[in-house]
Amino acid sequence: MKTASFLLSLESLLWPLDAADSGASDAIKNVLKLLICDINGKRPGVMIPIPQYPLYSATLAEFNIQQVGYYLNESTNWGLDISELKRAIEEARKTCYPRAIVVINPGNPTGQVLSRENIEAIIKFAHKEKLFIFADEVYQHNIYAPGSKFFSFKKVLVEMGEPYSKMELASFMSCSKGYMGECGLRGGYAEVLNMEPQVKAMYLKAISAMLCPTVLGQACLDIIMNPPRKGEPSYELFQKEKNGVLESLKLRAKMVADTFNSMEGFSCNEVQGAMYAFPQIKLPSKAIEAAKKAGKAPDVFYAFELLENTGICIVPGSGFGQVPGTYHFRTTILPQPDKLKAMLDNFARFHKQFLSKYS
Amino acid sequence: MKTASFLLSLESLLWPLDAADSGASDAIKNVLKLLICDINGKRPGVMIPIPQYPLYSATLAEFNIQQVGYYLNESTNWGLDISELKRAIEEARKTCYPRAIVVINPGNPTGQVLSRENIEAIIKFAHKEKLFIFADEVYQHNIYAPGSKFFSFKKVLVEMGEPYSKMELASFMSCSKGYMGECGLRGGYAEVLNMEPQVKAMYLKAISAMLCPTVLGQACLDIIMNPPRKGEPSYELFQKEKNGVLESLKLRAKMVADTFNSMEGFSCNEVQGAMYAFPQIKLPSKAIEAAKKAGKAPDVFYAFELLENTGICIVPGSGFGQVPGTYHFRTTILPQPDKLKAMLDNFARFHKQFLSKYS
Repeated sequence: MKTASFLLSLESLLWPLDAADSGASDAIKNVLKLLICDINGKRPGVMIPIPQYPLYSATLAEFNIQQVGYYLNESTNWGLDISELKRAIEEARKTCYPRAIVVINPGNPTGQVLSRENIEAIIKFAHKEKLFIFADEVYQHNIYAPGSKFFSFKKVLVEMGEPYSKMELASFMSCSKGYMGECGLRGGYAEVLNMEPQVKAMYLKAISAMLCPTVLGQACLDIIMNPPRKGEPSYELFQKEKNGVLESLKLRAKMVADTFNSMEGFSCNEVQGAMYAFPQIKLPSKAIEAAKKAGKAPDVFYAFELLENTGICIVPGSGFGQVPGTYHFRTTILPQPDKLKAMLDNFARFHKQFLSKYS
Repeated sequence: MKTASFLLSLESLLWPLDAADSGASDAIKNVLKLLICDINGKRPGVMIPIPQYPLYSATLAEFNIQQVGYYLNESTNWGLDISELKRAIEEARKTCYPRAIVVINPGNPTGQVLSRENIEAIIKFAHKEKLFIFADEVYQHNIYAPGSKFFSFKKVLVEMGEPYSKMELASFMSCSKGYMGECGLRGGYAEVLNMEPQVKAMYLKAISAMLCPTVLGQACLDIIMNPPRKGEPSYELFQKEKNGVLESLKLRAKMVADTFNSMEGFSCNEVQGAMYAFPQIKLPSKAIEAAKKAGKAPDVFYAFELLENTGICIVPGSGFGQVPGTYHFRTTILPQPDKLKAMLDNFARFHKQFLSKYS
């Protein structure tokens, strides 16, 4: 058992080098590519959360794989309801052959952190429906809310025992998030569990035609996977810096949600994890009309008004998907606290003017 | 005219950022992707040189585009004969719809540098056959042979005037080669000329779904495209280092070809450019039998024997394609001169032993 587990983890460590991904995005694309195959005359389908990180919708469109959206429940802090998964897959079966489910945990752009019970329920659902699991866990170090804890799909699935521990799973990790935040270096990997050996051989062959990722990206990823250990010279400093970054992000997560919740017409869920807030905003009907006249979606119209009046850039919710008739935007919690505060003050001033203009 | 040319070059400079490629390989793949489309019930075909850099064969296979190989003429220093292009495209028309031609200049793995006349003839051929031109020009700074000079396809095509100056062309450049050789940073771009506006819009949309390349790769590429100018503080040192690297590579190119040509059973063309020699090797029939017994292609067998006996790693010619019944390998000219000399001495010793073992 010890040896098998060692080999497994050794293999996991080797994947970053074998997989030659210039970031988790490439890793995700390369595993998604394995699903391009009509079954019983139906094209493949992949379940993704709505709202979702647009990498998924764009890649599925490129690969001609059907997007099977399941809505996250905004009223339960972007909770993932199994009944909604069932609704989505039953509807999708009419037009495609669902082969996989993508779960982003912690959520992007929604910032929720899944409970262990929730993950178990998703695994059971995926097992029943014979779905390959894509666990997008790039924000695993970014957990802020007091009751929240990160559980990896691999850990939960293995601990659930058979038949679940034999399921096919790919987990994705990156050096662009967490406490390192090295977006400018690009390093990522896929850890693949229980993949059918013939498929895995083809996967390895396909990615072997790629060049290796940048040396600095590989080095950065290695530091994240093998951080300094107790007793090593840089352990203390590393811990101090890591904890400092994460503690500050925690404060900022709260500051952002609290500020938005204090603004008229805004409601913002707690940012439990990741690096974003995704508040809902009620737009006055006059603003919606003005947007229509300008040929823009209302949330896009709002974002452009904000940008042009303040220089603040947000991403309209329609880029991520949202329940029709609702409007959101994504903003990061990343600016340093003093800049973040100044930005939020400006934002609030703009919003007041916007409301008085369109009310 | 001045303004138009300025805009053109400004656009060219902006492409690296727009195109978001983590290297020229990604840029090549993204442009190739535009050709995935059956025409008149036939799948698309792309002409590539044989021998060629395996990125092309692997990508065409992945995209289900037919590889239309045209042989380079080893007896004229890997010359590109128009009659061979005609033979290849006529044969290919029976089974596919040829849409593009890839030219690697300077050649990889073959190291030839195309003359201006040759490029003009290729452009005329591509025009007659309505082919999109892929000009892989990543080795454009690596020209060593006294009579050789680099001409870009863009320059020649534009100077030829209409109708040729209106042809669709993509030229590829990288920071991994030349005098910088920053393979570990990954930066590249596609400069696209005359692309049909609707296709270009779709291309830009497709690559916009990607993240941007690494910051260091972008910075490195900028230095190559905008090197220090006369009068600027680092101009002298930059020139000295650049010329030093290229002069040394020139000596090494000659050293490698000369050494192989002095070895029994070897014949090696002049390395006019790029970073490789691609010598032909006559293998004794006993060695070919031994390879068959070992279940290996003869050139692969030779490469493994070399690796296991000396630690020297070469790439067997079958990875690049070669005229059936001939055997080659690719080796770089990159090690520093003293190491290169030691390597070549070891290689020659091994080869003598190999010949005596299998003769």
